[in-house]
Amino acid sequence: MDPEATVRAFCNAVEARDVEQLVGFFSSDAVYHNIPIAPVKGREAIGTTLKAFIGPASEAEFEIVALACSGNSVLTERLDRFVIGGKKIELPVMGTFEVTPSGEISAWRDYFDMASFTKQMG
Amino acid sequence: MDPEATVRAFCNAVEARDVEQLVGFFSSDAVYHNIPIAPVKGREAIGTTLKAFIGPASEAEFEIVALACSGNSVLTERLDRFVIGGKKIELPVMGTFEVTPSGEISAWRDYFDMASFTKQMG
Repeated sequence: MDPEATVRAFCNAVEARDVEQLVGFFSSDAVYHNIPIAPVKGREAIGTTLKAFIGPASEAEFEIVALACSGNSVLTERLDRFVIGGKKIELPVMGTFEVTPSGEISAWRDYFDMASFTKQMG
Repeated sequence: MDPEATVRAFCNAVEARDVEQLVGFFSSDAVYHNIPIAPVKGREAIGTTLKAFIGPASEAEFEIVALACSGNSVLTERLDRFVIGGKKIELPVMGTFEVTPSGEISAWRDYFDMASFTKQMG
């Protein structure tokens, strides 16, 4: 898969809320930086972080609003949707993914307003 | 200029902190959505918003970290830097620009963590 296909497959996979499957998209030394929070490195730490917001969700979806590629970088504009404790959360997000030649995500940096998330969580 | 050149020229122009010049990059019906804040429409409203953060800055810079294009959309990952009241502000941002065939920016949506900005402002 090319970088765009890898990132589209990853975003589609979010709906299944299977953290082990999601972690499998990443290289062993991948860095996930959810920008307002400190970056985490490696599949185990990425899995722990993903579990924190995907674990409590009864539904999850990354809708891609816009996507553009430059070399091994894939820039996305998204609407991330979750249902957590019966509450519908909709978060506008942009994120950059870097993908290795073998099709593993080696970097993921997401940009969003944390207060927009916490306000919806109540 | 193609969409990429337009957006690079706009980002470069920020350093001059000339709001009238910056407003000239936009179409008359352009929408600027600084995501945590309500969107504004039209050159006058965009100018007012830009003045709010460029006006008090003694230095300003949009450093492009990554940029990718898809059709008339230009997705950017940036480090926006300001010096305001002697304080150095560094804000990680991603933004999507939509550019008309005649080279005007018709949409600009920026994604960032507002608290990261206000904390640095003190």
